[in-house]
Amino acid sequence: MTTALQHYLHEHIPLAAAMQVHVDAISTHALTLSAPLAPNINHRDSLFGGSASAVAILAAWAYLHSRVRQQGLSPTLVIQRNSMTYDQPVLGDFSATARLVDEARWPVFLRMLQRRGKARIAVASVLEYDTVAAGHFSGDFVAVLR
Amino acid sequence: MTTALQHYLHEHIPLAAAMQVHVDAISTHALTLSAPLAPNINHRDSLFGGSASAVAILAAWAYLHSRVRQQGLSPTLVIQRNSMTYDQPVLGDFSATARLVDEARWPVFLRMLQRRGKARIAVASVLEYDTVAAGHFSGDFVAVLR
Repeated sequence: MTTALQHYLHEHIPLAAAMQVHVDAISTHALTLSAPLAPNINHRDSLFGGSASAVAILAAWAYLHSRVRQQGLSPTLVIQRNSMTYDQPVLGDFSATARLVDEARWPVFLRMLQRRGKARIAVASVLEYDTVAAGHFSGDFVAVLR
Repeated sequence: MTTALQHYLHEHIPLAAAMQVHVDAISTHALTLSAPLAPNINHRDSLFGGSASAVAILAAWAYLHSRVRQQGLSPTLVIQRNSMTYDQPVLGDFSATARLVDEARWPVFLRMLQRRGKARIAVASVLEYDTVAAGHFSGDFVAVLR
């Protein structure tokens, strides 16, 4: 399942391939992507903030994408807004683990999506480098059934 | 000056090259980057949110980088936090124009940087597609003199 998703991301989102994103793990409650520093480096030999943000967004989107598919749904998922903090410098390979901001919202989100064809939910990603949380992302997504 | 900055970005930030970022214009009060859709597309043939965010961050950083250099300063510039809204779908080539959130903060920022060697300032980027504002980014940067 991780290989299929990775193939899908690299084939359909050129930046995922450029960032050399790897799908490490998928479960019902979390999804982890990782990426090497080299393609994501900045002029100071640390992680470019734009890569940090893009990998965090991709992890959140991929998590939601996988979880709705587990329910047999395939809505369009669009990011509406996000915020991110960059807490520690990232000087090597890093990961982003996405989860729902509030797991209790999931049944409400699903019910709304099935009844009205449209629903919103918040997903968080934590950036990790060298066993430390290096950044925190939170984004609001809207799901629309086609 | 736009060509020199573009060369610098492509050489030192691999993602800037992967996104095919072009430096369109630099002035004291604004900097505009643009990028084609193709390397930044998602699985639904519109702009990947991660690319939108990364180009907005790069515009903000490059603007601040250029403006401090106009003052003969070359501090390290690190993003601390940001927020972004994705307001309209982007279906083709797009741009990001960065400006200070509050121009009146500039002299305060400079004085603080020169006296204490460290200062913070907020930079906004507006994403534009087809003459419409398609997204709004705001980020806090810290400048540290080396």
